[in-house]
Amino acid sequence: MKKRVLTGLRPTGNLHFGHYFGAGVNYLKMQDEYDFYLEIADVQALTDNFNNPEKVYENVFELTCDLLSIGIDPSKVCFFIQSKIPEIAELTVFYSNLVTVSRLFRNPTVKSEVSQKKELFGNNGESITYGFLGYPVSQAADITAFSGEYVPVGDDQLPLLEQCREIVKKFNSIYGETLVLPQQVLSKNTRIKGLDGNEKMGKSLGNALFLTDSDEVISKKVMSAVTDPDKIHKDDKANPDKCMVYYYHKLFTPKDELDVVCRECKAGCRGCVSCKKELISNIIKFLEPIRERRKYYEDNPNEVRKILDEGTKKAQETAKETLKNVKKAMKIDY
Amino acid sequence: MKKRVLTGLRPTGNLHFGHYFGAGVNYLKMQDEYDFYLEIADVQALTDNFNNPEKVYENVFELTCDLLSIGIDPSKVCFFIQSKIPEIAELTVFYSNLVTVSRLFRNPTVKSEVSQKKELFGNNGESITYGFLGYPVSQAADITAFSGEYVPVGDDQLPLLEQCREIVKKFNSIYGETLVLPQQVLSKNTRIKGLDGNEKMGKSLGNALFLTDSDEVISKKVMSAVTDPDKIHKDDKANPDKCMVYYYHKLFTPKDELDVVCRECKAGCRGCVSCKKELISNIIKFLEPIRERRKYYEDNPNEVRKILDEGTKKAQETAKETLKNVKKAMKIDY
Repeated sequence: MKKRVLTGLRPTGNLHFGHYFGAGVNYLKMQDEYDFYLEIADVQALTDNFNNPEKVYENVFELTCDLLSIGIDPSKVCFFIQSKIPEIAELTVFYSNLVTVSRLFRNPTVKSEVSQKKELFGNNGESITYGFLGYPVSQAADITAFSGEYVPVGDDQLPLLEQCREIVKKFNSIYGETLVLPQQVLSKNTRIKGLDGNEKMGKSLGNALFLTDSDEVISKKVMSAVTDPDKIHKDDKANPDKCMVYYYHKLFTPKDELDVVCRECKAGCRGCVSCKKELISNIIKFLEPIRERRKYYEDNPNEVRKILDEGTKKAQETAKETLKNVKKAMKIDY
Repeated sequence: MKKRVLTGLRPTGNLHFGHYFGAGVNYLKMQDEYDFYLEIADVQALTDNFNNPEKVYENVFELTCDLLSIGIDPSKVCFFIQSKIPEIAELTVFYSNLVTVSRLFRNPTVKSEVSQKKELFGNNGESITYGFLGYPVSQAADITAFSGEYVPVGDDQLPLLEQCREIVKKFNSIYGETLVLPQQVLSKNTRIKGLDGNEKMGKSLGNALFLTDSDEVISKKVMSAVTDPDKIHKDDKANPDKCMVYYYHKLFTPKDELDVVCRECKAGCRGCVSCKKELISNIIKFLEPIRERRKYYEDNPNEVRKILDEGTKKAQETAKETLKNVKKAMKIDY
């Protein structure tokens, strides 16, 4: 029997290539190897978007379309909407008693996310909400509700999984072996740099290429990408390793063509503009099947809704079973 | 149409006369005047009894029997079990985003309860759990899930209602008018002193007379009640106002008999032992109908279960309706 994997994505915006190469590629592999549950984490998204529920609402459909467009196969992956699974909220409430407030404040992921949200939570996190502090608790509920054995997490999210494991161990020690102890999926977590050379591609960093960007937007973004600063003139020799355009060529350009790019760049016989144009054309080519699938789902929104409905129904049954066991263990099964 | 009132009781032990005169008597009046929802708050009880779920489990039945025994009429009052209403957990999660952690720490009721639970939460509350800190949030969910317009609260619980009102106002201001703003029931909240003269009768204080105490236990407890310390000998004059026995006579002894007690005590022609015996007999007499009703329900546990089942079913429907409105307002009604 396939092992179960659980992951969640917050519906707060469209997917960019940072998501694609950082997580999406792994999902495409995992969908064949695992019993894959994919949560559209709308309740989670509301923790720092409670003032803007419309954004979350719209992005449930958008994110689902993005995931389908990259090739996530709904016959292999169970797509579901978090807010439709009340058991997650119930588990969150139960687990809340097993975690101290000070432990949550020490969670490195919470710390780092709070420091990035000064507008919402204050310069020193003094206005952090009760809900946001409980992020690791609700994530433990997400994972355990579906008895996730594996969770694909980047290094920055590892402390959340660690805290989930603590909660599971504590629950099992008090109420008896009930919950499955999840572990990290061992997978390459590639972090994609931004077009500006930043170590991370991010929507909020303004350096991201989205899967839904039009040809025009892609052109404009790539044209402004950072090249080797030591190359001033067209005919100067340059170091491709310092150039974001070459960095992206490595992602989108076939091997033999890539060798030419590298050689010509080093030899100083390749202009940056034509090099960028070649990259733009390759990105657009790369996007072809993705755009095609996306168009199909955009034209057939009812099919997207059906995928979400059926996945959610399956997820509801799984979570119901977990909650039944949890309540039995906790002796609140009157 | 009757206004709706919501109250909750934690199933952590049997009712004592502090509960009876402090709250029960009000409930008996309210059940005729209001559309009364009475929550057996098992999830709430687990926040500081998570290590001891058996205790909570057993007391759900015990507490319900106690309430029925004092005359709470299930045809007028909707009894329900909190853990059977997942909507409460869902509302708790949603409201969590509308409350800052620092606001919860400033809640006087939270502060005072934490300081009373040093064994669980540390001498300075340093080990307070996430769940216990969120007590006011989940109580706001309890109240609003049933659109409680009135809540009978003692002075010590007033800050919880205040915080609930803040949450309701914040919710309505962000998502539009959805939740009912609850207010305090104006009722006499009598605080009953303990047998030892302590200002409060409490189980944990070891000074309580329970509705379920046997004749023998009642005799033993009353015999050890504190009398006027200035009265040393049988024939000394005494001040009834300093005597706990007289204090309890005022609760259980008919007016004309009470006048005799007072007069004889002041005149020094009344022995404490016979005075206590008279009190014991009056308490037992007072308990007669209560014991009778309790015996009926103990002998018919299925009837108690039916009361809980039917009340819970009604409460589920009410909470479902509220959650539907809440999700619609929050735009998570896909």
